[in-house]
Amino acid sequence: MRIELIFTPNEVKEEELKDRTVLVIDVLRASTTIAYALHNGCKGIIPANSIDGAIELSKKIGRDSALLCGEREGIKIEGFDLGNSPFEYEAEKIKDKTLIFATTNGSKAIVKGSNANSLIVGSFVNFQSTFDHLSSSSNDLAIICSGKLDQFAIEDAVCGGLYVSSFLKEGEYQLNDAAFAALKLYEGYKNNLLEMLKKSSHGRYLIELGFEKDLYICAELNSLKVVPVLDQGKLVSYNGS
Amino acid sequence: MRIELIFTPNEVKEEELKDRTVLVIDVLRASTTIAYALHNGCKGIIPANSIDGAIELSKKIGRDSALLCGEREGIKIEGFDLGNSPFEYEAEKIKDKTLIFATTNGSKAIVKGSNANSLIVGSFVNFQSTFDHLSSSSNDLAIICSGKLDQFAIEDAVCGGLYVSSFLKEGEYQLNDAAFAALKLYEGYKNNLLEMLKKSSHGRYLIELGFEKDLYICAELNSLKVVPVLDQGKLVSYNGS
Repeated sequence: MRIELIFTPNEVKEEELKDRTVLVIDVLRASTTIAYALHNGCKGIIPANSIDGAIELSKKIGRDSALLCGEREGIKIEGFDLGNSPFEYEAEKIKDKTLIFATTNGSKAIVKGSNANSLIVGSFVNFQSTFDHLSSSSNDLAIICSGKLDQFAIEDAVCGGLYVSSFLKEGEYQLNDAAFAALKLYEGYKNNLLEMLKKSSHGRYLIELGFEKDLYICAELNSLKVVPVLDQGKLVSYNGS
Repeated sequence: MRIELIFTPNEVKEEELKDRTVLVIDVLRASTTIAYALHNGCKGIIPANSIDGAIELSKKIGRDSALLCGEREGIKIEGFDLGNSPFEYEAEKIKDKTLIFATTNGSKAIVKGSNANSLIVGSFVNFQSTFDHLSSSSNDLAIICSGKLDQFAIEDAVCGGLYVSSFLKEGEYQLNDAAFAALKLYEGYKNNLLEMLKKSSHGRYLIELGFEKDLYICAELNSLKVVPVLDQGKLVSYNGS
């Protein structure tokens, strides 16, 4: 089996994904927030590629049952209900709601990967559950790191390396260069995930914006048991069926 | 001062380069071959973005004084004089000739970086000379890794990390995430450059094509003293003036 890791969504060759399982990672913060939102009982999350697309969709679904969520430059989009901090996605706000989710990097990566045989969203907080789910598949795996504005982001690479490291403990895999590199980076940072987030370019930016506590929640390994899977354009919690 | 490292040419924002020094790296094999070609006395090297562009240019310059050089998928382009192996660039073939150089990754990266304040081509073989040249400049630095077909290539990242490591010994620099990552990768592989090349995706491909000996020459640290600089669209050997 092959594991191909891709550092930025722009490098994804969509036509090559159709027989593969895709894992999308956006540690800061979309994939962490998605895990929290599903854990806290939202009905599903529709990734939107643009602000306009998100607004249009919310009108179709109806603003009673759908919430507009997302950020630009880390800050909640004007007129939207929620931003991209996991702390905002409390059960009382989101239970049984459909979330339309327009973040800068994570939503784009999910849309890019949506032609895959199946698509999972992973992060540090739900690593073990998502890894267990992935390791039950015999498809080749593509790990798409969301990066930041189509540039390499170290936190996504390190999280991707955690998955690669765990797969290699279970068997033999063909890795591309980026998967090898991510593995090395994970090995270097595995005992200091929070420090790594604090030093990362995106982490420093979020600290400037006042979101330092988000870094703590994003660095908590296996704090949630939830497997976000894409089902007909909507991320839902895998229920084992 | 800032050091920004970029893993693939597609990520380069050309408009941001004009006040910066650019270092282009394509260890396997363009930047190694360029170092050998200049060391062995060619007059200059014109990077071409396409095969057609290269042929057209050779007609303008005249086939007596210009050689057509380059590869596609690692193999010499049909009708061209030389491929992309450093071994082909012997003094007797290239002395005082202008080389028109159309490689898949390195030429593209050089053309992408050509709006920079100045552009240098570096590799393991001429690391020290190029580093000494770069460290005499006070401009911000952008390191463009050529990668392979716009995908991450570990050998270019590790070589980029060698430059980053050496800069950090001289002073303080602001690094982007990719520069940090390259530094970590260099630290992991610095005692095994040849092994790293042999394990890399591109290295394995070159071995399959019969170019294993090229990997040995590409891994030889500081075997040459030559600084390839871009001067009016042509790479020439910096002569200190």
